[in-house]
Amino acid sequence: MQFSELATKLGSAIAASSLDNQLNPILTGLAPIETASSGTISYIEGDKFAQCVSSTAASALILPMNQAIQSQATDRGIAWIAASEPRLLFAQVIKLFYQPFRLPPGIHPSAIVESGVEIGENVSIGAHVVIQPGVKIGNDVTIHPNVVIYPDVEIGSRTILHANCTIHERVRIGADCVVHSGAAIGSEGFGFVPTATGWFKMEQAGYTVLEDGVEIGCNSTVDRPAVGETRIGRDTKLDNLVHIGHGCQIGSNCAIAAQVGLAGGVKVGNRVLLAGQVGVANQVTIGDRAIASSKTGIHRNVEPGEIVSGYPAVSHKLWLKTAAIVNRLPEMYQFFKQSQRN
Amino acid sequence: MQFSELATKLGSAIAASSLDNQLNPILTGLAPIETASSGTISYIEGDKFAQCVSSTAASALILPMNQAIQSQATDRGIAWIAASEPRLLFAQVIKLFYQPFRLPPGIHPSAIVESGVEIGENVSIGAHVVIQPGVKIGNDVTIHPNVVIYPDVEIGSRTILHANCTIHERVRIGADCVVHSGAAIGSEGFGFVPTATGWFKMEQAGYTVLEDGVEIGCNSTVDRPAVGETRIGRDTKLDNLVHIGHGCQIGSNCAIAAQVGLAGGVKVGNRVLLAGQVGVANQVTIGDRAIASSKTGIHRNVEPGEIVSGYPAVSHKLWLKTAAIVNRLPEMYQFFKQSQRN
Amino acid sequence: MQFSELATKLGSAIAASSLDNQLNPILTGLAPIETASSGTISYIEGDKFAQCVSSTAASALILPMNQAIQSQATDRGIAWIAASEPRLLFAQVIKLFYQPFRLPPGIHPSAIVESGVEIGENVSIGAHVVIQPGVKIGNDVTIHPNVVIYPDVEIGSRTILHANCTIHERVRIGADCVVHSGAAIGSEGFGFVPTATGWFKMEQAGYTVLEDGVEIGCNSTVDRPAVGETRIGRDTKLDNLVHIGHGCQIGSNCAIAAQVGLAGGVKVGNRVLLAGQVGVANQVTIGDRAIASSKTGIHRNVEPGEIVSGYPAVSHKLWLKTAAIVNRLPEMYQFFKQSQRN
Repeated sequence: MQFSELATKLGSAIAASSLDNQLNPILTGLAPIETASSGTISYIEGDKFAQCVSSTAASALILPMNQAIQSQATDRGIAWIAASEPRLLFAQVIKLFYQPFRLPPGIHPSAIVESGVEIGENVSIGAHVVIQPGVKIGNDVTIHPNVVIYPDVEIGSRTILHANCTIHERVRIGADCVVHSGAAIGSEGFGFVPTATGWFKMEQAGYTVLEDGVEIGCNSTVDRPAVGETRIGRDTKLDNLVHIGHGCQIGSNCAIAAQVGLAGGVKVGNRVLLAGQVGVANQVTIGDRAIASSKTGIHRNVEPGEIVSGYPAVSHKLWLKTAAIVNRLPEMYQFFKQSQRN
Repeated sequence: MQFSELATKLGSAIAASSLDNQLNPILTGLAPIETASSGTISYIEGDKFAQCVSSTAASALILPMNQAIQSQATDRGIAWIAASEPRLLFAQVIKLFYQPFRLPPGIHPSAIVESGVEIGENVSIGAHVVIQPGVKIGNDVTIHPNVVIYPDVEIGSRTILHANCTIHERVRIGADCVVHSGAAIGSEGFGFVPTATGWFKMEQAGYTVLEDGVEIGCNSTVDRPAVGETRIGRDTKLDNLVHIGHGCQIGSNCAIAAQVGLAGGVKVGNRVLLAGQVGVANQVTIGDRAIASSKTGIHRNVEPGEIVSGYPAVSHKLWLKTAAIVNRLPEMYQFFKQSQRN
Repeated sequence: MQFSELATKLGSAIAASSLDNQLNPILTGLAPIETASSGTISYIEGDKFAQCVSSTAASALILPMNQAIQSQATDRGIAWIAASEPRLLFAQVIKLFYQPFRLPPGIHPSAIVESGVEIGENVSIGAHVVIQPGVKIGNDVTIHPNVVIYPDVEIGSRTILHANCTIHERVRIGADCVVHSGAAIGSEGFGFVPTATGWFKMEQAGYTVLEDGVEIGCNSTVDRPAVGETRIGRDTKLDNLVHIGHGCQIGSNCAIAAQVGLAGGVKVGNRVLLAGQVGVANQVTIGDRAIASSKTGIHRNVEPGEIVSGYPAVSHKLWLKTAAIVNRLPEMYQFFKQSQRN
């Protein structure tokens, strides 16, 4: 694709550009800026990566709204487009070069679709998929090979289920969701009541709901509760190997990074960010727009907008202070021992 | 189901009730107390949830042995039954309203059962299941779609294998076990010997044993050892995304929460509780009835009955104290700096 | 196998032995030293396990180069072989007794191999495997049942893919690799750009490369980047439930234990060891031969050869000191409060 064609396709997403008949390279692909070769388009996320512009071999760049950087690119003969959010513009460029694999429409002859399954229009059901009775599938849904869907499941339009994932009974998946490979949705919550003779299993008779636009990462698990619902709100994204316990209520537009674990009945607000390997204890409530940094262990409620770190979680500011001072403990302890002796 | 019928079915599990011809609602389902609607039965776990009784719309409740709470329910026209363990009674009620999906008996025509497989009576083998030679399956076993069983595996009666799980060679699964979707049992332990020219792979020639009544959560992994056994004792329950390293010996009646990881050769006693994201180092021994709170990192042996927290693990009491004081470190450090200057 | 035959097969791997016509037991299997029975061969890893020699019932032992221990074995009538690295020798012995299950060569009739797939010689493709168009498979490759391979994938010779794993598009797997059951290779990296109206999905258009000799544990996930590559170097081994974020560059001969998580763009050198549940933040660089102990949270670069522990990671030596002193904090705090009062 020629640079000028790319610029035309992006249209109003571009705030400034070097568009010029003299400098109109043919672009054959995308690359990270450090390893870009001639013919590729790359990007820098912000001003602090400015020095990369002086060394990259990319033929075109996406730049921030910084005239000095833009001039530098022009001086090096690099075509560029700019926007206030270069990463967002780059994401739009990627879509012009690459579309992920889509199964062809239709039901593969090796798929097993039991009776009493409703299937919408233009649906792709891959090889060896198994769909039990009482499942409803919307339009334009893609179900990759070897997915298993238990009975009493609804799947909204345009949703994609990747290979080898499992959708258990009593699950409601909205439109435009993605469930990545190996994930288990609506699996039995961990419910055992201790008795004198051992654990008594509490059957998990509730529902699991993914609202529209939810993504669930590879091998993540979202459990079904004993009663009521486990619910993940609209446009919330989960990374790989995340565990969502039974009865959790997660708001909209959250991002939950890899290997996070939420115990049972956790309530998470909207636009919450949980970094990798965070753990949240039973019944905790986390307010809107709260942030937990990686490996935080949350045992108490988190206020809206609060940023927490550490184990047990404290405010991120306090944690930064104490984490620094912990390393002075050997000195402090020596002083303490001496003072005691005196 | 009418309330009176429910009470009859539960029989001696009920210690007290409001049973009365005047107050005998028809119950159509189960609900959490906060969101219960008319026609549902719900429960409160103990006295501290008493205030919920004054606002719930449930038609029937399971209550603790507390006359004040019981009177309050009666006054609000809510039918109730009570027991000393309301959560256990509620688990029994759930079983009256809900049974999880069972595959119909028989072998689905798309399943591949290799020669030399012994199959008991009344077994359900789902679509696209693959069973390699030399596998023995007991009576009333359920194997959901897309499960793969390697050779030389034994599966006891009434055990359930959920979709997409994998049972590797040299596995012995007892009766009444449940392996949830995506779990891998008897997978190769992580055994590599460093040499001058790279890692030398130590083949894992041992056995993996799940005793009767064991449950393994979704996408959990239980590894096969080089020699000897990895063993999980009777009635022990594992949640999702748990890793059990090769050669671990876990006792009976334990509960191991999500994302816990045990390195190789760990010995765990009976009735041990490990909360979410706990990690246990190689060869550690954990005594009977010990408890580790969430995210604990255990590098040393834990005594029977001990409660541990923190990383590295210390007694829970000490951890509570130090975790509180850590947040006073900025003050302490300021004092320390001043004292040094003086 | 008779002891003498075993010794002959191991040949130059043995540095010393008790080989003698008088003491030449028939060996029927392998066992851990504590539970070994007559007829088995076992090993002790080093001098500190010497006391096991006095009590084991094994008929043969692999021993370290320690004459006292060797004499003790001889005195008890136990045949033995010795080497400077007993564990390595034992790994070689295991291979003489046990070979893991291999599928028979050929393509199972239930496998779905789409058009445009190149398959080498002597390949085993199991039941219900699904291979999309544009996949190239080398010689002697084994693909266990229910594996799904997306389009545009290359798999090198002798590589083994275990059951239920998923290989996504744009993946290059080298020769002699093993992908264990349930793993997801080349899955979409977690890339969402925040906008006023919600997350904008950044398509992941890059490649995922496993060099020769790489192993990926069960249910682990290795993500595909937006641009460029995620790369795991030659002979690097990953345990179960590991997450490798998009764009990570991992060197050769590393060992990464269970439940480790690497965020995006992490650079790891050669011969690095990451113990269980370690987490590494975005864009961090870890030098050659560095070691992180279990549960370490790494937010900053780690120097070559550095050993780190704790959260946030500090040098292991400092961490050992501070971890000990943290438990004296209650005393120190009491002293601090008293001093303030004075």
